[in-house]
Amino acid sequence: MKALVYNGPGLKALEDRPKPTIQAPGDAIVRITRTTICGTDLHILKGDVATCAPGRILGHEGTGVIDSVGAGVTAFKAGDRVLISCISSCGKCENCRRGMYSHCATGGWILGNTIDGTQAEYVRTPHADTSLYPIPEGADEEALVMLSDILPTGFECGVLNGKVAPGSTVAIVGAGPIGLAALLTAKFYSPAEIIMVDLDENRLAVGKRFGATSVVNSADGGAAQRIMKLTGGRGVDTAIEAVGIPATFKLCEDIVAAGGTIANVGVHGAKVELHLERLWSHNMTITTRLVDTASIPMLLKTVQSSRLDATQLITHRFKFAEMLQAYDTFGRAAETKALKVIIEA
Amino acid sequence: MKALVYNGPGLKALEDRPKPTIQAPGDAIVRITRTTICGTDLHILKGDVATCAPGRILGHEGTGVIDSVGAGVTAFKAGDRVLISCISSCGKCENCRRGMYSHCATGGWILGNTIDGTQAEYVRTPHADTSLYPIPEGADEEALVMLSDILPTGFECGVLNGKVAPGSTVAIVGAGPIGLAALLTAKFYSPAEIIMVDLDENRLAVGKRFGATSVVNSADGGAAQRIMKLTGGRGVDTAIEAVGIPATFKLCEDIVAAGGTIANVGVHGAKVELHLERLWSHNMTITTRLVDTASIPMLLKTVQSSRLDATQLITHRFKFAEMLQAYDTFGRAAETKALKVIIEA
Amino acid sequence: MKALVYNGPGLKALEDRPKPTIQAPGDAIVRITRTTICGTDLHILKGDVATCAPGRILGHEGTGVIDSVGAGVTAFKAGDRVLISCISSCGKCENCRRGMYSHCATGGWILGNTIDGTQAEYVRTPHADTSLYPIPEGADEEALVMLSDILPTGFECGVLNGKVAPGSTVAIVGAGPIGLAALLTAKFYSPAEIIMVDLDENRLAVGKRFGATSVVNSADGGAAQRIMKLTGGRGVDTAIEAVGIPATFKLCEDIVAAGGTIANVGVHGAKVELHLERLWSHNMTITTRLVDTASIPMLLKTVQSSRLDATQLITHRFKFAEMLQAYDTFGRAAETKALKVIIEA
Amino acid sequence: MKALVYNGPGLKALEDRPKPTIQAPGDAIVRITRTTICGTDLHILKGDVATCAPGRILGHEGTGVIDSVGAGVTAFKAGDRVLISCISSCGKCENCRRGMYSHCATGGWILGNTIDGTQAEYVRTPHADTSLYPIPEGADEEALVMLSDILPTGFECGVLNGKVAPGSTVAIVGAGPIGLAALLTAKFYSPAEIIMVDLDENRLAVGKRFGATSVVNSADGGAAQRIMKLTGGRGVDTAIEAVGIPATFKLCEDIVAAGGTIANVGVHGAKVELHLERLWSHNMTITTRLVDTASIPMLLKTVQSSRLDATQLITHRFKFAEMLQAYDTFGRAAETKALKVIIEA
Repeated sequence: MKALVYNGPGLKALEDRPKPTIQAPGDAIVRITRTTICGTDLHILKGDVATCAPGRILGHEGTGVIDSVGAGVTAFKAGDRVLISCISSCGKCENCRRGMYSHCATGGWILGNTIDGTQAEYVRTPHADTSLYPIPEGADEEALVMLSDILPTGFECGVLNGKVAPGSTVAIVGAGPIGLAALLTAKFYSPAEIIMVDLDENRLAVGKRFGATSVVNSADGGAAQRIMKLTGGRGVDTAIEAVGIPATFKLCEDIVAAGGTIANVGVHGAKVELHLERLWSHNMTITTRLVDTASIPMLLKTVQSSRLDATQLITHRFKFAEMLQAYDTFGRAAETKALKVIIEA
Repeated sequence: MKALVYNGPGLKALEDRPKPTIQAPGDAIVRITRTTICGTDLHILKGDVATCAPGRILGHEGTGVIDSVGAGVTAFKAGDRVLISCISSCGKCENCRRGMYSHCATGGWILGNTIDGTQAEYVRTPHADTSLYPIPEGADEEALVMLSDILPTGFECGVLNGKVAPGSTVAIVGAGPIGLAALLTAKFYSPAEIIMVDLDENRLAVGKRFGATSVVNSADGGAAQRIMKLTGGRGVDTAIEAVGIPATFKLCEDIVAAGGTIANVGVHGAKVELHLERLWSHNMTITTRLVDTASIPMLLKTVQSSRLDATQLITHRFKFAEMLQAYDTFGRAAETKALKVIIEA
Repeated sequence: MKALVYNGPGLKALEDRPKPTIQAPGDAIVRITRTTICGTDLHILKGDVATCAPGRILGHEGTGVIDSVGAGVTAFKAGDRVLISCISSCGKCENCRRGMYSHCATGGWILGNTIDGTQAEYVRTPHADTSLYPIPEGADEEALVMLSDILPTGFECGVLNGKVAPGSTVAIVGAGPIGLAALLTAKFYSPAEIIMVDLDENRLAVGKRFGATSVVNSADGGAAQRIMKLTGGRGVDTAIEAVGIPATFKLCEDIVAAGGTIANVGVHGAKVELHLERLWSHNMTITTRLVDTASIPMLLKTVQSSRLDATQLITHRFKFAEMLQAYDTFGRAAETKALKVIIEA
Repeated sequence: MKALVYNGPGLKALEDRPKPTIQAPGDAIVRITRTTICGTDLHILKGDVATCAPGRILGHEGTGVIDSVGAGVTAFKAGDRVLISCISSCGKCENCRRGMYSHCATGGWILGNTIDGTQAEYVRTPHADTSLYPIPEGADEEALVMLSDILPTGFECGVLNGKVAPGSTVAIVGAGPIGLAALLTAKFYSPAEIIMVDLDENRLAVGKRFGATSVVNSADGGAAQRIMKLTGGRGVDTAIEAVGIPATFKLCEDIVAAGGTIANVGVHGAKVELHLERLWSHNMTITTRLVDTASIPMLLKTVQSSRLDATQLITHRFKFAEMLQAYDTFGRAAETKALKVIIEA
């Protein structure tokens, strides 16, 4: 089969690989019908993700059709259409039993990282019963690809952890795909204000179109001051960090109101400074989270009931053979204005 | 001053009364600019509310302008425009400190019940600092009258207690003003399904217009069966009882899913049957609540940010001199299709 | 093998039965080392439990050693010592994913009810990976038998649902084994007052010994009055119903404070009256729950760290061959003062 | 009257000052019967607290008797015995209404900071109705002095924010008075393990006596490693930072389990490093909080019901005239083994 393979920093190729086979009773083999590319895939290609070794098939998102299942799989059978979670979850270990699938003892983020992933014609998915979700009759499969990772990430790490609530004030720092996913799902809770912050005017315009009540371009260093002014000097109830660098985390520290929350979504490569000399008495909360995707069933209901139009995030579509072109388009997002790209089998 | 006075069962009149005066340091005298009529006022007029004695000026909702304040009032001064909560709260007692203002040791629902109310040119409001709310510059005062009682009641007793959540399934039994207030505020949380139940086709049509995803006419006794079918046999996550009779409570018992909640909003005059022989193992919750109006500041933000159009509930408008006509219109709601009526000074 | 078999109302016998065998990939066969008798077993024997057909091996509690496992079982292997939950949970269905194992689509309370149970030399346990718990090295196995059902039931249905909290006031109506289990686990949260209510002076004395701060004998009908007096007229924050009849539920309605919770634990055979004509405005909560046993891992930690002495509930010990005698002793608890009996293989 | 006055860095004196008088309708004048010294008082004396100007009477803890009240005070009258909260709360502003008294618009920590405090014969307490608490008949007044600040601080900032729960694992970094207050109140929730960390063997011994299950001396830099070993490599569910320096915060980062919480209690004078390059995916929470003292009524109940022996924290007792000696003893805690000192009028 064809697969997108990471061959070391800066190197990727569409290669021929053997079709995967069942290795454990809980496995399923899924024929991929649609996949996409994540910012994390670009990080891997830069060599930033130590756990991902050269030779790995990338990809942790997608939909497909069950090809075969192991002896222990009871929830799925060949022919079933499924949504693949980016997180593999055994459903049995202590962390899975408390809903923290991201830290599953034998799962977590392994697809396209420590085992072969979904940017291929077929993928082996461990713990299939608790890591795949049935696609409802009549569902828009493209929309559901957005439920593999990006929407649960924005929702769980940003919105849920950030305790977004009716009437509250939210700032989302970073209007890339993940910040926009946080924006779309923040609207579930009807906050009064959603302030979108970015350096890129195009992305801010998208934020505005998606429902931001204000946008702030942080290029000139005056973002904190403008947000404090927008909030009457009070700051925001929820600051969602969706970039992953010290400067944006610092901005969140500067704008969070007393009693508020900084919900970190960004993947950080370096430590940040936490100004406890000021914040120790600020009655604030900081949260971090690797997405658990425990919210997939709920998000599926919001998509099926048209509360959430997940397809808004999709800007480009490719065929599987155009995978390298898809990477190129997604990798040059500032120019191409790409958010999420769909790659169809 | 003119005031609407309850003179015993079936008897009401627009009478001349002396303007109220400050009686305690925490009091304010408010000149009423707008008030409305509540279903509870009709209950009083039927003689159903034992605590309300003949001679009482009715009304517990409204907006106005501060006329004078007692020596202990620090948050308001003459001339301030204010929203009046239907609940008087001292802010000091154990129940107030935990946000349960409805059970304030020296307050609660007293306006238009045990002390004179707001259907008058002036009203004395005890505990003014913690029972009145400043009206923001530029706010639509008519909309805010809906925040005195009906919207907080629908929201707190129905939506909050009912734990309405993104993707969840809600049934609201009773599409009168209070059920519709629950519907409008349930939408804050983006449930997947909101099923509205009533006997009156007009009210169901309003429910549909306000955002119900399905409506069920319960006239033929088949409502439970239809709702179970609508929910794939699962039942609803939240059943909001907004009528107050045994039959509608029974319907809620019949349709609540395992793990779900019945949030009672209705004012009941008789006991109901609770079928614990079936429900003991149903992992369900039943809640009751007299509105605390603790959500007024939050609701104000949703109105100010256009997340909530409170004026949708207003169907008729009267001048103060037309108060009896307003009662007549509101009292014959089935014919007049009245929801909430505004009475302007 | 020998097994205690229900042969229709009033009829039970210790019979010879074939040793169970693996029927599904997720099954385990467990050799029972210790089991016990539950009040529910007595209900079955009276013919009160329609789901349990004659011919059934009773019992849903116990510890044992894994004899064999199906192909899909990954968490256990032959020889492992295990604690058996009274609730079988697939870990995969919607209810299991939210921790509501009691309503598992293919599990729930089935052991000793719709499939053969633990009062036998061997038992087949479906969904073994998520329904059995490993017994830690050095643990007291007798204590752990109390974690199969009675302690999770008292804790989850009574204490957790009842929101027992530091400084709060709790009444437990019914000082049988289940009420006492609620008492022992209520102490986890350091309530200021725990009032134990029963008709039986012996059980009240046990309650006192287990940590109740007051006991009330309800024989004379004056219990509500005495509890209101004990609480300064306020009532209790939490009323735990641990009997299952209308009179005891009524007592809970009479004593729950505004803002409080009635947590139902009792198994009811008849409907009760809910006095909403008074309680609609009482800001109260009623909960019901079939135990999920989701708290077993936590309870195990409290037993292992000596926060909870589960063996206090054990009053009698029998050998497996004395099973009928154990039933007799447990069935005449008023005379024998039996709480829980241990039956050892 | 006599009062302990801060006269600039390093300078304090017992001086004669005029008795305070009512300045606002909500004020009360309290004759102090008992007070104590807080670590924060020592910080002020070092010149570390910029808001506290020379000339200020120190002290924010204590009990007393109402001498006189302003016209707006309704909950207290002359002669009432009261407990003084370290936090003044108006009960009316947005933050007070949500229970965040520490950020009261016109209160917060002002006593002995921006207005004169309790280390004097009399003190003026603003917002008396909502900042003082009645002392119950028969209560031990010395114990209650511990409720002004130290116990609510340990409980709210450490235990509540840290989500200590039955069966959980807690580490408290810093066994000074505040860490020990966290320890005493952590026990309310029956965690399985409480690991106390300090450099001082005496304080660790006190921790052990107060209920720590393990103690770790962090002098050799191996604390993190030993705690990870104690927890089977998992880390702790709750890490309470009760020192306020970068090294102890770092220790908390190193030992918190995935899904766990760092609850900061310490007053920090410098920023810390937050290792998001590792922790971004750790599903963790960090909280900060200036004590709200919202828990005083609850703590009072636990003291009155003997769930909490607050007097354990008291090591030394002085008369008011010996105030300087009390400071000396408290200031040399390492030698004197002082925890809290009581200064009696």
